[in-house]
Amino acid sequence: MATPVTPPRGMRDFLPADKASREHALAVIRRSFAAHGFDEIETPVMEDAARLHSGLGGDNEKLAFAVLKRGLKPTDAAAAAASGDLLGLADLGLRFDLTVPLARFYATHRAELPTVFRSIQIAPVWRAERPQKGRYRQFVQCDIDIIGESGLLAEIELITATAAALDALGLTGCSIRVNDRRILTALLAHWSVAPELNERALIVIDKLDKIGVDGVVTELAGLGIATDGVADTLTQIADAGWTAAEPTPPAWLNTDAFADLLALRAAMPEVRLVFDPTLVRGMGYYTGTIFEISHPDLGYSLGGGGRYDGMIGRFLGTEVPACGFSIGFERIVDLLGVDAASAENAVVLVYDKGTDPARLVALKRTLVEQGLRVRLEQRTKNVKALLERAAGAGYGRYAFVGADASGAGELDFRPLGG
Amino acid sequence: MATPVTPPRGMRDFLPADKASREHALAVIRRSFAAHGFDEIETPVMEDAARLHSGLGGDNEKLAFAVLKRGLKPTDAAAAAASGDLLGLADLGLRFDLTVPLARFYATHRAELPTVFRSIQIAPVWRAERPQKGRYRQFVQCDIDIIGESGLLAEIELITATAAALDALGLTGCSIRVNDRRILTALLAHWSVAPELNERALIVIDKLDKIGVDGVVTELAGLGIATDGVADTLTQIADAGWTAAEPTPPAWLNTDAFADLLALRAAMPEVRLVFDPTLVRGMGYYTGTIFEISHPDLGYSLGGGGRYDGMIGRFLGTEVPACGFSIGFERIVDLLGVDAASAENAVVLVYDKGTDPARLVALKRTLVEQGLRVRLEQRTKNVKALLERAAGAGYGRYAFVGADASGAGELDFRPLGG
Repeated sequence: MATPVTPPRGMRDFLPADKASREHALAVIRRSFAAHGFDEIETPVMEDAARLHSGLGGDNEKLAFAVLKRGLKPTDAAAAAASGDLLGLADLGLRFDLTVPLARFYATHRAELPTVFRSIQIAPVWRAERPQKGRYRQFVQCDIDIIGESGLLAEIELITATAAALDALGLTGCSIRVNDRRILTALLAHWSVAPELNERALIVIDKLDKIGVDGVVTELAGLGIATDGVADTLTQIADAGWTAAEPTPPAWLNTDAFADLLALRAAMPEVRLVFDPTLVRGMGYYTGTIFEISHPDLGYSLGGGGRYDGMIGRFLGTEVPACGFSIGFERIVDLLGVDAASAENAVVLVYDKGTDPARLVALKRTLVEQGLRVRLEQRTKNVKALLERAAGAGYGRYAFVGADASGAGELDFRPLGG
Repeated sequence: MATPVTPPRGMRDFLPADKASREHALAVIRRSFAAHGFDEIETPVMEDAARLHSGLGGDNEKLAFAVLKRGLKPTDAAAAAASGDLLGLADLGLRFDLTVPLARFYATHRAELPTVFRSIQIAPVWRAERPQKGRYRQFVQCDIDIIGESGLLAEIELITATAAALDALGLTGCSIRVNDRRILTALLAHWSVAPELNERALIVIDKLDKIGVDGVVTELAGLGIATDGVADTLTQIADAGWTAAEPTPPAWLNTDAFADLLALRAAMPEVRLVFDPTLVRGMGYYTGTIFEISHPDLGYSLGGGGRYDGMIGRFLGTEVPACGFSIGFERIVDLLGVDAASAENAVVLVYDKGTDPARLVALKRTLVEQGLRVRLEQRTKNVKALLERAAGAGYGRYAFVGADASGAGELDFRPLGG
């Protein structure tokens, strides 16, 4: 066959060991979110193309995979393509995030949902990005969102549920950087940045981690922004009084927004919250608080979110407040090792060719009933290779089934690998 | 917005109660399969279009959703469409089953897999079928397959694992109907059916349940098949000696295949196996045993499978024996009720507007740590409606958070719904 025997470009197969790690992590996240009162929903992987391309997805819209209209005649397809009528050619698309489908779901089912709706979505999304290390064209997102709550309770529930999930995964040392879009707006006003330069200035500020204070000053100057006092502000706000019991922020800091961040801190003493007045987050739809998960060993975030009060209304026609937090699952799962605890209960029975299948299955049944995970393997010339593969697949013990061994009690289990 | 606020045609959203039932059932099935030594894998939802349309998927290939080539210029799209070059227009497609991706996966990763590979795949597939009751365009399949085992041990492990999953789901009364393609071939030879009529005759025999012995005789006669003795054979084989300890099948029954079925029965005394010599199963790729899950209350099967020794070789270039069993998840989940056991541990805290978020979150944290699932709800004018919605979402108890209630011990929980 001429086609290559590989998955499509930028997409991955998962072998048993990887799949087990992924499912284990997903179950932990799902359980944490559910314990915090969030309810899981599911939407189809495809959405109406017109809805997908309604402008809420930012640059990601350009990366959506389009699905060819069914039953399209070649002549009609040619006509649609020639006239540039993409919707006539492809009326559906694969979702590129879980936020646009959530807004559509909420608009469809609002009457059946509680006044304040706390959703979990754990599902794959697709983006036709240029494949590169750590970037995939199919990847899983774990989102929680609260729709209908305008108060800080939304932020608190989202952040505590996310912190609990990270704890349950065993990812210690994470902190949550928090900021507020209103503080960024105040900062730009303090520097007298012209409103039309706001978005470009924010992109520069977002790079502070990488290019330092001097780099930010240089790039802002390059945009034609007067940079007197910029270096001073950036140095001052690195601390911003956040660590003090009674913080005294600089006068330009929006006091409402800063008071909100202090209230978040007071409500979640167990979560390591770090105020970062230069945290930006890319998506233009954020309107208030924004947050991001940092890990001390990593130069990238493990997830993030924020308040996006204007967005749900775009689909619904009525304004509804909303706030969400998304865990970057692919990055998280790369940090976690294979679950070792379950290996002890996973056993391999090695049998000789010609052993009666009925006896093998009776043995297996007894062990499964005892709570073990049981794999049968016929003995090969290279038993060592066979056992190494089983160890790699998460099996922790093995035993040979003798030609006359009839009871599970006669099996002599030995440790595998190690 | 002009587009309708609904999921795409034939696809479904799942609200929290349905999603919880689905995830519960999937976890039970996953656990049963894993306990029986099967290993879960995952492949991307898309496959190379040329591979998807290689003839292994039967009629389902026509139902595949095609994915538009990325970065295609309108002029190129028009040219490809006009020339009928579908692969030039759409180079990827959504999988319509899990068997074609498994064959591709095995060809890609054979060197990394055990000699006998037992796979689990639990994942959605897509078919652009005409939407109708019980038929969806996106639905979940739960497949187990054993690749590399030519002996009956494969059938035994597949059937026992499937029966265990059905038991664990609480679906009592299921039986597994078994037959063998070789017995069907022998039956047709016994009736002197011309080989070129075999497929059409099998389609008629498959309808025995619905149209009865007389109906089968009439339709076979309509195909020009001599039907002397057909009614007698069908009446005889309704029992076929299967229930006797030492069965004496009619002479035409392929003795090898019948002996295999008796060996299956002997190896799985706990599984209700029913020999049905008129069981056909649609897919042309089956080569040996075939099986199907029956439930006494239902007129349709809950899943099925069989041996398909020729198929993996089509992708790999080397013959490899294979056998698989697929549970029809959408039908199974429709039969199951909502999981009632977990409702007791799911509680709603109803609070008054203005309650300090920090206190609410502290209360919630304490209850979550006690193992409860906790939803916070602000009191509305219609508390009854609020509580009914929570009961519908699987919550079993509720309590009012008084303005001064500070400890979780002071909450007065009452049952919800019922």
